[in-house]
Amino acid sequence: MSTNQRIDAKRLWDSLMAMAEIGATPKGGVRRLTLTEVDKQGRARFTEWCRAAGLSLRVDAMGNMFARRAGRDPARKPVLIGSHLDSQPSGGKFDGALGVLAALEVIRTLNDLNIETDAPIEVVNWTDEEGSRFGHSLLGSGVWAGAVPLDKAYALADQQGVTVAQALDAVGYRGPEPARPFPADAYFELHIEQGPILEREDRAIGVVTGAQAMVWYDLCITGQDSHAGTTPPSARKDAMVGAARIVDLVDRMMRARGEDGRGTVGFMEVRPNSRNVVPGEVLFSAEFRHPSDAEVAAIDAAFQAEARAIAAALGLGIEINRLFVNPAQPFDVACVGLVREAAQRLGMAHRDIVSGAGHDAVYVARVVPTAMIFVPCKDGLSHNEAESILPEHAAAGAQILFEVALARANRPLA
Amino acid sequence: MSTNQRIDAKRLWDSLMAMAEIGATPKGGVRRLTLTEVDKQGRARFTEWCRAAGLSLRVDAMGNMFARRAGRDPARKPVLIGSHLDSQPSGGKFDGALGVLAALEVIRTLNDLNIETDAPIEVVNWTDEEGSRFGHSLLGSGVWAGAVPLDKAYALADQQGVTVAQALDAVGYRGPEPARPFPADAYFELHIEQGPILEREDRAIGVVTGAQAMVWYDLCITGQDSHAGTTPPSARKDAMVGAARIVDLVDRMMRARGEDGRGTVGFMEVRPNSRNVVPGEVLFSAEFRHPSDAEVAAIDAAFQAEARAIAAALGLGIEINRLFVNPAQPFDVACVGLVREAAQRLGMAHRDIVSGAGHDAVYVARVVPTAMIFVPCKDGLSHNEAESILPEHAAAGAQILFEVALARANRPLA
Repeated sequence: MSTNQRIDAKRLWDSLMAMAEIGATPKGGVRRLTLTEVDKQGRARFTEWCRAAGLSLRVDAMGNMFARRAGRDPARKPVLIGSHLDSQPSGGKFDGALGVLAALEVIRTLNDLNIETDAPIEVVNWTDEEGSRFGHSLLGSGVWAGAVPLDKAYALADQQGVTVAQALDAVGYRGPEPARPFPADAYFELHIEQGPILEREDRAIGVVTGAQAMVWYDLCITGQDSHAGTTPPSARKDAMVGAARIVDLVDRMMRARGEDGRGTVGFMEVRPNSRNVVPGEVLFSAEFRHPSDAEVAAIDAAFQAEARAIAAALGLGIEINRLFVNPAQPFDVACVGLVREAAQRLGMAHRDIVSGAGHDAVYVARVVPTAMIFVPCKDGLSHNEAESILPEHAAAGAQILFEVALARANRPLA
Repeated sequence: MSTNQRIDAKRLWDSLMAMAEIGATPKGGVRRLTLTEVDKQGRARFTEWCRAAGLSLRVDAMGNMFARRAGRDPARKPVLIGSHLDSQPSGGKFDGALGVLAALEVIRTLNDLNIETDAPIEVVNWTDEEGSRFGHSLLGSGVWAGAVPLDKAYALADQQGVTVAQALDAVGYRGPEPARPFPADAYFELHIEQGPILEREDRAIGVVTGAQAMVWYDLCITGQDSHAGTTPPSARKDAMVGAARIVDLVDRMMRARGEDGRGTVGFMEVRPNSRNVVPGEVLFSAEFRHPSDAEVAAIDAAFQAEARAIAAALGLGIEINRLFVNPAQPFDVACVGLVREAAQRLGMAHRDIVSGAGHDAVYVARVVPTAMIFVPCKDGLSHNEAESILPEHAAAGAQILFEVALARANRPLA
């Protein structure tokens, strides 16, 4: 199975750098918020490259872009490869862009080597993966996969009151194709890990077996504002102390699950937030993630009970609003197997890994056999202008993407 | 010693309500920020009442107002009674105003009963007790007592850049008298407790023996921002967890001192404060108070050591900036004794109490024999538009103020 067909590492890197010019920030990052003029420029450059590679482009009602390289057999379902070109407000050069431009590099390599495939291959750019403008991440893929109703997505507004529908029209990307699944053979997405595991273990490739389950909460602890100097211990109802003990609970519950556990309080607002007033109210977030649905269900029950017990012991009120429970999303065993085999065949250091972050692939996996490929990023840093990867890791990931797309597009059908 | 000389409870209450009209808020509170047009109106009403009571008024370079009722012996040092007329931005009707208007009621009662005193009695209105406009509480009394240099006070600016000196000129209260101590026999200040102790024990009078010692800190915990989904427990440097454990430490150290302990984290700012990012930095305040200087010194040493140990155990950085240590300020034993004896003589339920809040009396006590009288306030609530007291408690406090001012002004000199 091993061949000497190699993607062009330099061309891939040059494309990454050229895309990073669009929305470049002074600190070396990227600000390419979805459906802005900057995103429009990024899409235009991508379109130009697709046309140069001979691809035919379709745009759907959510602005998702599908650039098709025909196969020998027009009846075969296409193999989808891609990711997203939008970024966080202070984002990096590689989050999303790597997956799209590596997919383009796969096409360019097939063209260079005059390789025809049985099935078509389509490069995908999903709209609004990041969610930072309209408050809902994975929006384009979510609508496409049927997880988010189109009406609801169109109605979401940014802080200036501009809706998704208006923003799509403004950039000219409310396309004619329906935003719903079409028959596809597989979906592969290359992405930076956005975590420290591969770098720490010095492995080039993460074979992503699926996405974690997660549960998110908003909590509000209510006590009584009072004067820090005049209120004796017996009369205090200190919402801050209650919140602090729940922060510690979240950390302990995470660590009880070992290295697969995730538990975070990332947001907190203290009221009235004055140094000589015992806080009467603390609003904060909590979230847990774990590869196992059963573990997340167990965490959910125990967390709610223990948080309520902490508040009750302090005479505090507590409201726990469970925002959602997302089940674990295992990826397709055959597709994951192709990724693992390719890494083995090419002698690349690799390991199985569960995605801790959300990705378009998690929604797509609901309707199409899916797998993901991770490559290391420096210090696990992402959603940050300092986000950085090594060119050889970008090339390694793109090479794996090439291998699995080709294998899948030429696989014998039963 | 007991007499049937009684202050006029209704007149006192009417004066409180009339003063509360100036800067009245829709929710029944008061917004009478120091050295504003509203404060000027309050000062004008107070001046009018002083003149009607036959008092002669002096204003010093900090706008502190001294309204004098002459004594039989012009050589005797005056007895000072008063408090402040400025309020918090969302303040109540009684914080400060009670002490000034009860002092005025003492004068009115002496006038009604044609009582001459040996020593003069002066009603005082201290400028800017609250500190909410220029960021420094107890400003007028602080300059007067020599704790704050006049230059420094004049240079303080509000959020619009207006300095104290400019604000004094704008309202016409930069007076000709020097803002420094003059010989005075005693200072008595009636104030609401601003805490729950008297109300809980159903006592009308708090015999204030002094003010607590206190130590204030700013802390900064530094970890590393990272993705909540992708960062395994072993790779986390969660500043929020460190801050939470220090909040719990503050509470535990307070409770270890019993009912005299105070320990509060009132302010916290989390960075980047995003629900799916492990916080990389948390800024927060901490403060402790206790009647004993030795206890505060012991708390200071233990707190700094234990907070550093908590951060170190989590691999976090910590900066502890100790803003100040204020020593305990005991009040004058003879003056405190007069308050206690008056309450006993009049059969009022009372108890000794240590002031948890800062008061003008704490600075004045550095240079003049001083005592304070507390009365209960509803639910211990203050610095709040809902601040509320019972008319009978206002009257009880004013009656004690009358008794002690009269006793001190007529005391035989050695």
